[in-house]
Amino acid sequence: MKTNKPKTAIVTIGTEIVIGQITDTNSQWLGQKLFALGFDVQKMVSIPDLPEIIFKTLDEIKDFDLLIFTGGLGPTDDDITKQCLCTFYNSKLELNQIVLDDIREIVQRRNSTVEINQRNRLQAMIPSPGKFFRNKVGTAPGLIFDHRTDLPVLIALPGVPFEMKWIWENGVQDFLIETFDPKPQEYIQFFVSGIPESSLAELLEPWEKSLNPQWQLAYLPSPGIIKLRLFKPSDDLSLFNQRIDELQHILGKFLVGQGDLSIEEILVKKLTENHLTLSTAESCTGGKIAHQITSIPGASNVFKGGIVAYDNMVKIELLGVSPHTLHQFGAVSQEVAEQMAVGVLRRMQSDLAIATTGIAGPSGGTPEKPVGTVWIAVATRQTVFSQKYIFTTLRDVNITRTSNTALSWLLNLIQSLKI
Amino acid sequence: MKTNKPKTAIVTIGTEIVIGQITDTNSQWLGQKLFALGFDVQKMVSIPDLPEIIFKTLDEIKDFDLLIFTGGLGPTDDDITKQCLCTFYNSKLELNQIVLDDIREIVQRRNSTVEINQRNRLQAMIPSPGKFFRNKVGTAPGLIFDHRTDLPVLIALPGVPFEMKWIWENGVQDFLIETFDPKPQEYIQFFVSGIPESSLAELLEPWEKSLNPQWQLAYLPSPGIIKLRLFKPSDDLSLFNQRIDELQHILGKFLVGQGDLSIEEILVKKLTENHLTLSTAESCTGGKIAHQITSIPGASNVFKGGIVAYDNMVKIELLGVSPHTLHQFGAVSQEVAEQMAVGVLRRMQSDLAIATTGIAGPSGGTPEKPVGTVWIAVATRQTVFSQKYIFTTLRDVNITRTSNTALSWLLNLIQSLKI
Repeated sequence: MKTNKPKTAIVTIGTEIVIGQITDTNSQWLGQKLFALGFDVQKMVSIPDLPEIIFKTLDEIKDFDLLIFTGGLGPTDDDITKQCLCTFYNSKLELNQIVLDDIREIVQRRNSTVEINQRNRLQAMIPSPGKFFRNKVGTAPGLIFDHRTDLPVLIALPGVPFEMKWIWENGVQDFLIETFDPKPQEYIQFFVSGIPESSLAELLEPWEKSLNPQWQLAYLPSPGIIKLRLFKPSDDLSLFNQRIDELQHILGKFLVGQGDLSIEEILVKKLTENHLTLSTAESCTGGKIAHQITSIPGASNVFKGGIVAYDNMVKIELLGVSPHTLHQFGAVSQEVAEQMAVGVLRRMQSDLAIATTGIAGPSGGTPEKPVGTVWIAVATRQTVFSQKYIFTTLRDVNITRTSNTALSWLLNLIQSLKI
Repeated sequence: MKTNKPKTAIVTIGTEIVIGQITDTNSQWLGQKLFALGFDVQKMVSIPDLPEIIFKTLDEIKDFDLLIFTGGLGPTDDDITKQCLCTFYNSKLELNQIVLDDIREIVQRRNSTVEINQRNRLQAMIPSPGKFFRNKVGTAPGLIFDHRTDLPVLIALPGVPFEMKWIWENGVQDFLIETFDPKPQEYIQFFVSGIPESSLAELLEPWEKSLNPQWQLAYLPSPGIIKLRLFKPSDDLSLFNQRIDELQHILGKFLVGQGDLSIEEILVKKLTENHLTLSTAESCTGGKIAHQITSIPGASNVFKGGIVAYDNMVKIELLGVSPHTLHQFGAVSQEVAEQMAVGVLRRMQSDLAIATTGIAGPSGGTPEKPVGTVWIAVATRQTVFSQKYIFTTLRDVNITRTSNTALSWLLNLIQSLKI
């Protein structure tokens, strides 16, 4: 069982995936976790809920060390994964009292008057031989098939992403480390903002040539932010650290964060450390910035609140934007962005405020202000800064890019102002 | 070559995919297009840029009718797809002048002083026997291998999403229709809310037994909403429609929408049709509801704005919540939720308003109000409704479930009130 880089496949089951109705995000999440632990993911497969295809797929990967399945463990008739795996591993299903009690707790937490039904009882059936992982956030337990020496260790998890992640973090990860003792692959990650990817590549070119190729420098671009990732070597660490110091020096003001956190996690952390409060006034981002910040635990200590000012009346009455300014310069203007930021800072009595106003699209553009034109303003108690951007013609990209740019700009400001 | 439902696989090649560095969005896009055209996608596979794994994968799917490959056609050394496919299909590479001219045009459009280099010439090498699709937005042409009667028709496209999509729309789609003459597959979809998946399955059990299995009823759950999907048959439509009528009757108030739209798209559509405006007052959802609504084009016609009232001071000063009520019942209470909804409706002068207040977690719970306790209120100009929920212990799930529940509840209300 103990191999250094266990050969691994991720299999997601669901007709909705192969017909393109949903994007399979489980595979990427699992791929990243497995890779970081030291597993060698050689294949990701998505297949429909059809027994003959599930059996054929199992047959193709039966020489692997580890298989992670997600999907098809729900209570409805189209959920056939468990039965197929039991057939393939020659296990039987037996009712498990612990799992049944967990399911009752979940069901009754949602509605205390509901008793568990026959379908819930089917979900409490566990393969024998076989093991299970408890699920405290949903009704489908994780399943382990590891009793056949001629077949891979197989773990089956529910397809609902948060249930899959919960079981991974509360059981699967420890089980895999104990079973396979893989050699972890560590990495270091930097958040870069304010420079296009091609210019960044040019800036880093000479430095990049001095790197060991095994560190596998990767550029991971997303709207408004580029992540740089390097794999940490297990030896030679002094040379690696020297290169990292050089990188930080070269990136200078473009470096807005570091580590395995998201930009909003870093921001909430910095605000908390500096005892600063924040508020938001959003037009084109429509609440996304507030949502990103409040998705982080502990946000309530630093985030006072926000105003989504879609209608101009709301900009005037709640944010104190001057009707005259709105008339003269239009809602998408430097003047309105700055008045929004100052207005929300005063209303919410916060130390810092972000404001956004722009034309997200797909319609609403003019020759002078095309779709993608955005003003971002950041106010402190003393002053207000603003900046114009022209992004894309795509609504969702414009919203995401504006939010990420505003958040990374605010981070940068906190660092440079040393408020 | 002409089969009714050509058996199809989508293969994406790239080490960055299997180590979880990027999400493969090409497969979903292609899956949706292929399904709509009438192809039977039985498999999606992602594999690293390694020849032995590419050959093994080709071997596993050599009995398919159609294979769509993306990735590994770039100019750098790790791009090996073309060479592997030529080996498998027994083709040779030959320089193609049309492709070379296309590449020169692309390169010189970016920088007119640059001459094409040896790597660009390699990209202009086309398999023989074989065909190609021109690429006017990048340097890698699409490739067609269709000369081997013992092997599937194989189309290889670049992995960069916009290049892949451009070639699909400007060549691949027409080629596939002409070559395979597939029969398009339609489906029908219902949004259900307010009932757990297992209870829904029980409710539908007798009805489900009367269905033709080929319609493949599927349950697609997400926090707060379950989608039901049925494939529309090409004949027997009267029986199908009769079952659909029955379903609508059985679902009753749990049915909140229908079609291929998201819940927020349906809501914006309904509000627009009924000339109704909406505003939001969000505490625990922190702006997510406003963000979901404003992510839909045309939201500005129906959405006045929102207030994210994280701090109690904001609830009092901007939403007019009584300090006495806050003190007596706490921020997470029916009274505060209702005052928030009424308050934002008045401030924003909207026809409808949603308010949320709850304990998203992970901390902040008490024995009487555990993490996951949420009050949702919906106000009209005449009245206000409210409802308590107890969701999970997970912050992100509580936020998503509260948002989706509030949106589907509002949809329900619009339908039942016939405002």
